[in-house]
Amino acid sequence: MDQAEIRRRLGEARVARLATVGAAGRPHVVPICFAAAGDAIFFAVDHKPKRTTDLQRLRNIAHNPWVSVLVDHYDEDWTRVWWVRADGRARVLVGGAESDHAIDLLVARYEQYEARRPYGPAVAIHVDRLSGWSATP
Amino acid sequence: MDQAEIRRRLGEARVARLATVGAAGRPHVVPICFAAAGDAIFFAVDHKPKRTTDLQRLRNIAHNPWVSVLVDHYDEDWTRVWWVRADGRARVLVGGAESDHAIDLLVARYEQYEARRPYGPAVAIHVDRLSGWSATP
Repeated sequence: MDQAEIRRRLGEARVARLATVGAAGRPHVVPICFAAAGDAIFFAVDHKPKRTTDLQRLRNIAHNPWVSVLVDHYDEDWTRVWWVRADGRARVLVGGAESDHAIDLLVARYEQYEARRPYGPAVAIHVDRLSGWSATP
Repeated sequence: MDQAEIRRRLGEARVARLATVGAAGRPHVVPICFAAAGDAIFFAVDHKPKRTTDLQRLRNIAHNPWVSVLVDHYDEDWTRVWWVRADGRARVLVGGAESDHAIDLLVARYEQYEARRPYGPAVAIHVDRLSGWSATP
């Protein structure tokens, strides 16, 4: 799958899975809503009720910025399955214009956020590697 | 979400996302088909065409056994989204009865595997923590 196609599929996806690494070297993975723009991917902590442990992703990023973001399509017809992945470094944006910009992108992309703008913090991922695989080339 | 409900949702899911950690401390995430049995989750490398880099998951597990497995449901109605996660230690099963048993479980669960039994290796994850979240409790 070429880079343009990977970007197209990443740009159209409504949900991705974010993997981070904790202080003890254990991985952590959660679903995220996100916005891709150029070489960046943004997501934000929103208002959905969460337990404290759900912020593990932010603690992990503060300790180890490397993240992996996966978008995949599953189908019982296994000739139709595919995935795309963006790997890079994440940075927590705490307030300010940069954070506002990231949240604006998210609100523009998800009408669900219009009624309830994410409070944040927002996170910016600088993507340094895009990869993809499709069962049917 | 209680442990029984987490197990139920994990047991019914057809696809999960596996996060592992590479030697340089970078996370890696891929979709997997899997079978859950008791405190174990099994998956196997199958025959789908793969590039060498796709076996990163096995290299990572050999170096760092900690893994995180996520099943999630996305819906544009955000009151319906949920996820369940199983964290634990993975072990690559190279041949033998243990590997055959894992692959048997996978073949029993996915008719797609019946026509083309996974070659392996198979991986066993010993789950030490189950967690779950639902937008609507």
